[in-house]
Amino acid sequence: MKNVSIKLASRPVGVPTDACWLLEENNIPELADNQILVKVLYLSIDPAMRGWMNDGKSYIRPVKIGEVMRALGVGEVIASKHPDFSVGDKVSAATGVQELAILDAKDAVKIDTSVIEAPVYLGTLGMSGLTAYFGILDTGQPKEGETVVVSGAAGAVGSVVGQIAKIKGCRVVGIAGGQEKCDYVVNELGFDACVDYKQGDLRKNLKEACPNGIDVYFDNVGGEILDTVLGLINFKARIVICGAISQYNATEKIVGPSNYLSLLVNRAKMEGIVVFDNAANYGKAIKEMATWVLQGKLTSKVYVVEGGVRAFPDTLLKLFQGENIGKLVLKIG
Amino acid sequence: MKNVSIKLASRPVGVPTDACWLLEENNIPELADNQILVKVLYLSIDPAMRGWMNDGKSYIRPVKIGEVMRALGVGEVIASKHPDFSVGDKVSAATGVQELAILDAKDAVKIDTSVIEAPVYLGTLGMSGLTAYFGILDTGQPKEGETVVVSGAAGAVGSVVGQIAKIKGCRVVGIAGGQEKCDYVVNELGFDACVDYKQGDLRKNLKEACPNGIDVYFDNVGGEILDTVLGLINFKARIVICGAISQYNATEKIVGPSNYLSLLVNRAKMEGIVVFDNAANYGKAIKEMATWVLQGKLTSKVYVVEGGVRAFPDTLLKLFQGENIGKLVLKIG
Repeated sequence: MKNVSIKLASRPVGVPTDACWLLEENNIPELADNQILVKVLYLSIDPAMRGWMNDGKSYIRPVKIGEVMRALGVGEVIASKHPDFSVGDKVSAATGVQELAILDAKDAVKIDTSVIEAPVYLGTLGMSGLTAYFGILDTGQPKEGETVVVSGAAGAVGSVVGQIAKIKGCRVVGIAGGQEKCDYVVNELGFDACVDYKQGDLRKNLKEACPNGIDVYFDNVGGEILDTVLGLINFKARIVICGAISQYNATEKIVGPSNYLSLLVNRAKMEGIVVFDNAANYGKAIKEMATWVLQGKLTSKVYVVEGGVRAFPDTLLKLFQGENIGKLVLKIG
Repeated sequence: MKNVSIKLASRPVGVPTDACWLLEENNIPELADNQILVKVLYLSIDPAMRGWMNDGKSYIRPVKIGEVMRALGVGEVIASKHPDFSVGDKVSAATGVQELAILDAKDAVKIDTSVIEAPVYLGTLGMSGLTAYFGILDTGQPKEGETVVVSGAAGAVGSVVGQIAKIKGCRVVGIAGGQEKCDYVVNELGFDACVDYKQGDLRKNLKEACPNGIDVYFDNVGGEILDTVLGLINFKARIVICGAISQYNATEKIVGPSNYLSLLVNRAKMEGIVVFDNAANYGKAIKEMATWVLQGKLTSKVYVVEGGVRAFPDTLLKLFQGENIGKLVLKIG
């Protein structure tokens, strides 16, 4: 059986180019005991992927040159040498960017796609949703009546952050790029307001949208937006640093937040989060979020790109161009 | 009776100049009920003063133009209209930069200078020491065996931070400017090492001094030093933002920490502190620190400048020139 995969060919400087990738076709070997063969259906396309392409110490080891690019996916079992998995089972796993994945059974999680569609397990009920869940609840600690601001509000993580904060009784203000995204955030996700950072004076618009100041800020973007928000935080505010998509392709020094002394003036806290630290509690979180999804409290938009494995390099770039509304996934099978 | 005071004449741009100050002589009025008249003996000279000279929202209201410059001091009661205070009592209070201060009795705290000298109540047992105490213990939360780094290590706050971290069983590394300060920090304060940021490669030297990485960083200086430390922190590190003396006279945009995404990679926390939030626990803290002082575990160096009120403008600048080792005080009476 033939597999098609995309391997990391070289490390990018700035925006990834075609030279970073190598498309390879190869035969799938025999399964060993306790392995399963998974036909990949959808891949999760995440800003974090850009970080995994870099060398150097980070929260997870870099993808090696010549290795299949790391990716989370959902798929269908088409062969199994493990008693717990049968052909036809749907699973979620780190499949990599390829059509077929041989996995140790222990690295795959069965999912039920009869009520909730498969791609949702990559978004709201996947790493994006879990990042949002633990980041906003454990680190952001929003209290009823507080104002929560989230950047990348139309994205996979930001959209869940804001909806959870609404469930917790907060005033929720999104930041997103463009009117279409802002409309989606307010009209479909139910945020109280959304500021378009591409239009007008961000500071002024944000101040108007947050008449009581900002108690919690969930940052997915970094750069000037982080800096502007820092200038508007309240006493004992909490800043959750989840990502910095504006800086991931920087070829010069990353821009640090000039207003960081606002942390001092306001006795505020800025804390970094990585979802993997919460692995022991994934089950509980997914269960709670699935309930919210079924109750209609947590809307889950998926932005599906067709084209299979070969479309991966271009699809990844969509994230940095801010093209997607909702969770970006690549359809494979 | 004649008083001499220094008032704020204009707000500085960058380094304060003589144009910022107005020396005034005036007669002391009659005391009202519950007031005391205090002859100021020593004034505490603090980096925070630079912030108080600026307009705009901060953790404390700005000193007004035409108002006596805010300062903490120790002095002797020379007249009293309050039953709890007698002539000859020594007190600590926000006296302002002046020779004589009329205070509401409720704003003064009696101090015992029979065993511990008066200026120590401005340093280790004053705001500097309290800032260090609550900042390192409550926010830094150093655990035995961890590595604690503190900048401004020879200064009033940093010297106490490091000594408390030593008491708690940590490896303590200071950062200071010049060999003389570094020698003082290691030989007199008992830090395990001190890195001279003016000599050689700070990152390399700090890495060598912290073979197990950095678990707690107490920052008094900001700028490049903060940035360098952020690149060396451990998983779950805590960064205490106490001040940023390198930036207080900045006339351009403050330099934010380019390496702030190290907070994400390491799930670390950066938190601002202001000592005033702990007012309810000052008594307990002073008692514990006084015990350490008397046991010789907490050395308290005071850098006394003579010259009275008139020497205030030049004395303040010494802080930014890094001249003082230990707590900078101005002798008045």
